[in-house]
Amino acid sequence: MSEQRKKIIAVIGGEQPSPEEAKLAEEVGRELAKRGAILVCGGLGGVMEAACRGASSEGGVTIGILPGNSPEAANPFVQIPIVTGMGYARNISVVKSAQAVIAIDGSYGTLSEIAHALQSGIPVIGLNTWSMSKNNQPDNSIIQAQNSTEAVNKALNSTAH
Amino acid sequence: MSEQRKKIIAVIGGEQPSPEEAKLAEEVGRELAKRGAILVCGGLGGVMEAACRGASSEGGVTIGILPGNSPEAANPFVQIPIVTGMGYARNISVVKSAQAVIAIDGSYGTLSEIAHALQSGIPVIGLNTWSMSKNNQPDNSIIQAQNSTEAVNKALNSTAH
Amino acid sequence: MSEQRKKIIAVIGGEQPSPEEAKLAEEVGRELAKRGAILVCGGLGGVMEAACRGASSEGGVTIGILPGNSPEAANPFVQIPIVTGMGYARNISVVKSAQAVIAIDGSYGTLSEIAHALQSGIPVIGLNTWSMSKNNQPDNSIIQAQNSTEAVNKALNSTAH
Amino acid sequence: MSEQRKKIIAVIGGEQPSPEEAKLAEEVGRELAKRGAILVCGGLGGVMEAACRGASSEGGVTIGILPGNSPEAANPFVQIPIVTGMGYARNISVVKSAQAVIAIDGSYGTLSEIAHALQSGIPVIGLNTWSMSKNNQPDNSIIQAQNSTEAVNKALNSTAH
Repeated sequence: MSEQRKKIIAVIGGEQPSPEEAKLAEEVGRELAKRGAILVCGGLGGVMEAACRGASSEGGVTIGILPGNSPEAANPFVQIPIVTGMGYARNISVVKSAQAVIAIDGSYGTLSEIAHALQSGIPVIGLNTWSMSKNNQPDNSIIQAQNSTEAVNKALNSTAH
Repeated sequence: MSEQRKKIIAVIGGEQPSPEEAKLAEEVGRELAKRGAILVCGGLGGVMEAACRGASSEGGVTIGILPGNSPEAANPFVQIPIVTGMGYARNISVVKSAQAVIAIDGSYGTLSEIAHALQSGIPVIGLNTWSMSKNNQPDNSIIQAQNSTEAVNKALNSTAH
Repeated sequence: MSEQRKKIIAVIGGEQPSPEEAKLAEEVGRELAKRGAILVCGGLGGVMEAACRGASSEGGVTIGILPGNSPEAANPFVQIPIVTGMGYARNISVVKSAQAVIAIDGSYGTLSEIAHALQSGIPVIGLNTWSMSKNNQPDNSIIQAQNSTEAVNKALNSTAH
Repeated sequence: MSEQRKKIIAVIGGEQPSPEEAKLAEEVGRELAKRGAILVCGGLGGVMEAACRGASSEGGVTIGILPGNSPEAANPFVQIPIVTGMGYARNISVVKSAQAVIAIDGSYGTLSEIAHALQSGIPVIGLNTWSMSKNNQPDNSIIQAQNSTEAVNKALNSTAH
């Protein structure tokens, strides 16, 4: 990557977070903006909107990669809507565009994004999210964090590309 | 779905299965063909090839949805190669084209397919594969099977659409 | 491609053909089936349905690669629905899965398929369809045919892969 | 679209433009940046690089939606690389993310983007690019421009969404 480019960090998670998880997402967004990173997400509500709100409050750049056909579906804190018209296939672009991924809560869509990131060698930092095992052997590929600052530190220190 | 259409079952799994898992995949393919189902998979080697070999040995129809740009990448037991040129985004088509998914072993690509299937409400039957938990609560959405016959029975009995 | 595999020919075109164009599409489908080729299309109505109807009437295999999330959107003559959930991105899979493409009538979706086919080096045979020029120089890449038999002959004789 | 959002205009075209077409693309990029629009393109060389170079020289924001798996393929004037891993399917995201498209020169990939834009109701402004006819009737959907200023004016005045 060009050295002049800012780091891009993905924040992924569900559309119906608990209030605590939404607060975590907002803190993560704020912290990423303070640290000069660009935020990429799936562009919709819940964790995605909370993270964009946090980043916007600190003047950060926010990108939303949308599943549908209209930029109007983006949450109001997305500055740059990318419109794919490809449904869940956009999940792959969300994680591949990032140098690290922070996963907060989330449902199966988030799990698919975690899997696509790990498949692509992109580090995943987890906050109250999925864990996996295969044949009863735990898979420890998700880097655990206890709070938003730790998550952002780990994301910025373990970036791919 | 049109009543005349045959059921389509996806078999997903890694490119480097153990000999036992390859044997399981071949049995699953054979059993699906005997039961009149069409097999869809990612079209490459390992579990995908073993399942196609099994289905072919019983005269079944095999479809391989390929990530690359050429049908020549398909394993020799794929009768109908679907060429997407879309990389891992083809994983989504593999599971969405099926009324149920049988997962055998597999790595992160398989995990992404499990996640996309569950997100789409398509039943997933697991043989020696991933299991997940969220916030330390086990997610029991994957229907466990102990052998190939049980997997095929469960797949044919729990189909979506 | 494995020598045992049947040729796969795409038939592309609009959802609202004239009666004559629908008749052409049906003849093309019938002729492809008689000649042993598998028909792939976008799975919906109009030219796609007419071609599938023709192929089915001769016992041919028909594949519909669908833009949406359900196999139920397929026309009744599609035997094997491939469900992508990727909207118009499925157009690319339709043409890439074929060794040649027959375009009948069609609107901008068909034009996108013609362009993707030519970009991929897959021959396009045209029946009452688009023609293009660049900077006022005609582009003669589309192989013109005057009737369904000529179109099928040219498709089967000029296949890629 | 949120009123606060900047307009996003796509510049599409080939990787091997003539010197004059590259100059046109650079002027278009410069003019878009001066007028406050965000530039989106396919992120690679030729017309895409020239347009990004122009926009960058005026401090504009440039987005490159890449076909491959690495941001390193982006031309050096792309500030925000979106990595899709989806090959030519990324063409669809390039045009759908824009409120208008300026096409300069280009080969079949550009033609596919023109077709996807017109299919989505997104205005296309043409500078030395493709024209089409169907059944010998000219299709005048591409809005012709004679120079870069006219192209940018027409793009900004005819935006969709």
